Amino acid sequence: MLQAAWNGGKQDGCSGHPPERRRCEGDQTVVTCTKSGVNLMPSNSIFSRRSFMQISAAASAMAAFKIVHEPMAVRAAWQGYPSGAVRIDSNENPLGPSATAREAASAIVADGGRYDDDLTGKLEALVAGQYELKPDYVHAYAGSSSPLSYAVFALTSAKKSYVTADPGYELGMMACPFSGTRVVKVPLTKTYAHDVKAMLAQAPDAGLFYVCTPNNPTGTMTSHSEIEYLVEHKPKGSVVMVDEAYIHFSDGTSVIDLVKANKDVIVLLTFSKIYGMAGLRCGLVIARPDLQTKIAGHGGWSAMPTTAVVAATASLQDAQLVPERKRINTEIREQACQWLASNGYSYVPSQANHFMMDVKRPAKEVIDAMQKQNVFIGRVWPAMPTSVRISVGTPAEMEQFQAAFLRVMNGRTVGWSLPEAKPRRRNLDGFVLPA
Amino acid sequence: MLQAAWNGGKQDGCSGHPPERRRCEGDQTVVTCTKSGVNLMPSNSIFSRRSFMQISAAASAMAAFKIVHEPMAVRAAWQGYPSGAVRIDSNENPLGPSATAREAASAIVADGGRYDDDLTGKLEALVAGQYELKPDYVHAYAGSSSPLSYAVFALTSAKKSYVTADPGYELGMMACPFSGTRVVKVPLTKTYAHDVKAMLAQAPDAGLFYVCTPNNPTGTMTSHSEIEYLVEHKPKGSVVMVDEAYIHFSDGTSVIDLVKANKDVIVLLTFSKIYGMAGLRCGLVIARPDLQTKIAGHGGWSAMPTTAVVAATASLQDAQLVPERKRINTEIREQACQWLASNGYSYVPSQANHFMMDVKRPAKEVIDAMQKQNVFIGRVWPAMPTSVRISVGTPAEMEQFQAAFLRVMNGRTVGWSLPEAKPRRRNLDGFVLPA
Repeated sequence: MLQAAWNGGKQDGCSGHPPERRRCEGDQTVVTCTKSGVNLMPSNSIFSRRSFMQISAAASAMAAFKIVHEPMAVRAAWQGYPSGAVRIDSNENPLGPSATAREAASAIVADGGRYDDDLTGKLEALVAGQYELKPDYVHAYAGSSSPLSYAVFALTSAKKSYVTADPGYELGMMACPFSGTRVVKVPLTKTYAHDVKAMLAQAPDAGLFYVCTPNNPTGTMTSHSEIEYLVEHKPKGSVVMVDEAYIHFSDGTSVIDLVKANKDVIVLLTFSKIYGMAGLRCGLVIARPDLQTKIAGHGGWSAMPTTAVVAATASLQDAQLVPERKRINTEIREQACQWLASNGYSYVPSQANHFMMDVKRPAKEVIDAMQKQNVFIGRVWPAMPTSVRISVGTPAEMEQFQAAFLRVMNGRTVGWSLPEAKPRRRNLDGFVLPA
Repeated sequence: MLQAAWNGGKQDGCSGHPPERRRCEGDQTVVTCTKSGVNLMPSNSIFSRRSFMQISAAASAMAAFKIVHEPMAVRAAWQGYPSGAVRIDSNENPLGPSATAREAASAIVADGGRYDDDLTGKLEALVAGQYELKPDYVHAYAGSSSPLSYAVFALTSAKKSYVTADPGYELGMMACPFSGTRVVKVPLTKTYAHDVKAMLAQAPDAGLFYVCTPNNPTGTMTSHSEIEYLVEHKPKGSVVMVDEAYIHFSDGTSVIDLVKANKDVIVLLTFSKIYGMAGLRCGLVIARPDLQTKIAGHGGWSAMPTTAVVAATASLQDAQLVPERKRINTEIREQACQWLASNGYSYVPSQANHFMMDVKRPAKEVIDAMQKQNVFIGRVWPAMPTSVRISVGTPAEMEQFQAAFLRVMNGRTVGWSLPEAKPRRRNLDGFVLPA
């Protein structure tokens, strides 16, 4: 049952760094790595639950400070991508907002002095209509990251754990040090699905199960029936949050039907991915009204950016947008994967706008070398240290990626490097991490 | 010391509605009004602190559900303002974003597929430069409402109260039922300043003092020296948050110097008011990095709307914008107030883009009657039941307001009314309340 507190979002291990001892609350001692910040407490510690909680709270508080603080310094230093950079590191959609979405967003700017909440209500009603839900089952946010954080504060605590996949999208567990929540990271199955039985077994105290499908970073699906199993067998009072940020790229089935059936299920949707609106900020929470209330109560009362609201509305009214963009994304992704295979590199088959590729060496080295080629690729997850996430760019960007990747992997980068690698801002659907 | 939990955001009292008894946690009984939801517990209850907390938590949880739930129903029903409506109800700026801000926002829409965090970093650096602060003292949010909520969760608890003015801006105390925080509402002084000595006296357990200056709804100032006094005498570990949303309209002095001096002070700024960007969503938290970390940890990790970021940046680069808009606002506000005085109505002298006018009857009646004239005026605060807040509109809007107001007050509204008053969405810088 006992697990070490989350290691601080670091992708590297802590080998070679001297351990540091710090005296904490409850007169307990926590050992962390001075350089990587990784918590060195053993996973199978013999500490009592209570002493674990004391240690965990103190360690989490310290780690949390570091987590948020370092990115702020990086944010101040980061000057943006160099000119001509290939940006396939943040699961963005290079197509951007659709033509009608752009027109709608531009047209509303002159009215930007008004809150215009009725537009948000109309967007929510449109979504509700399309999914055949009651209007109060839909709530819009400025992106789906915020309500994910709010759900952690609303549904977990020192006594109710947060259960997520490893590797998985990190934002939710980054809130856990602030709520004093135990994080239970459960490895994916051999097919890179969420291991729902292991998630259940490892967290009888679960407050919130987080399932991202297709998963970030692997792009792999967890089936509707597996999520149903999770919902049917979860501890009483717990909630299953299904992040469907990437589902439009896939052949998978949404679990919004479980929301409609009034199960303890929250679905997150976003306009940041297939709709190409990452910078405009619009996400949706689909859930029962009582769950909406809990989430909104933890910070979700702010007005929406009207530019995003009208762009989202226009996007939903274009029935061709999703199938067309799905086709484009699939084509480019499959071409890139076939190219990798033909060059002897392996990857995880994906149904999203990103995929994990195995570089057979510490992936951080490849990321840094690629950056010097002006090609920005995604990050590493500790569970897959020799793999790196690649987002699907335009055909031209993927060609540049391929050329740079061969140069890097074959050691033929002399004369190609940029003068120096600048401080880099890392983006997790909006949150920043140091490189 | 003991105060009833916040009454649920209701502006009306509960006279005439039958009280309802509910059995709560800890086998205690709470009495609430069935219709208004107002907590009927006496302010000077003899309950012990512990039993108060038990009751309060349960009552708050119930009230909170109602608070958030009703607005959602209203939001679904509200279809927006009728054509030609005069909108002086939400402290918006009718001038909207400046010309350069509009251009910048429209120009970035095509790049809306990118998170473009570097733009946020540059905005924060620009603000830091203008105030001569280190970059990590500035953090941008999609409006200032969210970080106000986050601060409640970060800095208050069942043991650390939230202290605010009465009447005052409500958003912070609306988060308190979700954090289990006691709300201490302290009446303004006779000059409508925050009564900092009373705030200190009534909250030895304070976690967060909230001071809005100029105050919403009264538009009145709390001086720099009074805030200094509060900071110097506050309980150890507590924090003073100063909301300067309206300060650009006033002759007052910002307390950002106290942040610079590393005091326990957080300043909120917004681009929603003088900059006319309420619908674009950009606010700023100015605070020491350790306080920034605590606030951001409670949900502040989401990317910014780039339309708002570039519009804010353009606005800050226009040195004439604030003085010019301040002059325009002052002129229209003072004309409106003189007109009221010349017609025998009293008002609270204001330094903001809104003011309280006394209608000498239950203000709700006047609001409803004005709505039938297609003139939407602001809301009522329980502490000033015969006053209503008026936002400063354009000269043409204020003329329409004056004509409608005379008709309403003189009972000459026959033939002017709209067919029916539709459900109305109430906006508190983004949050919605039922009418």
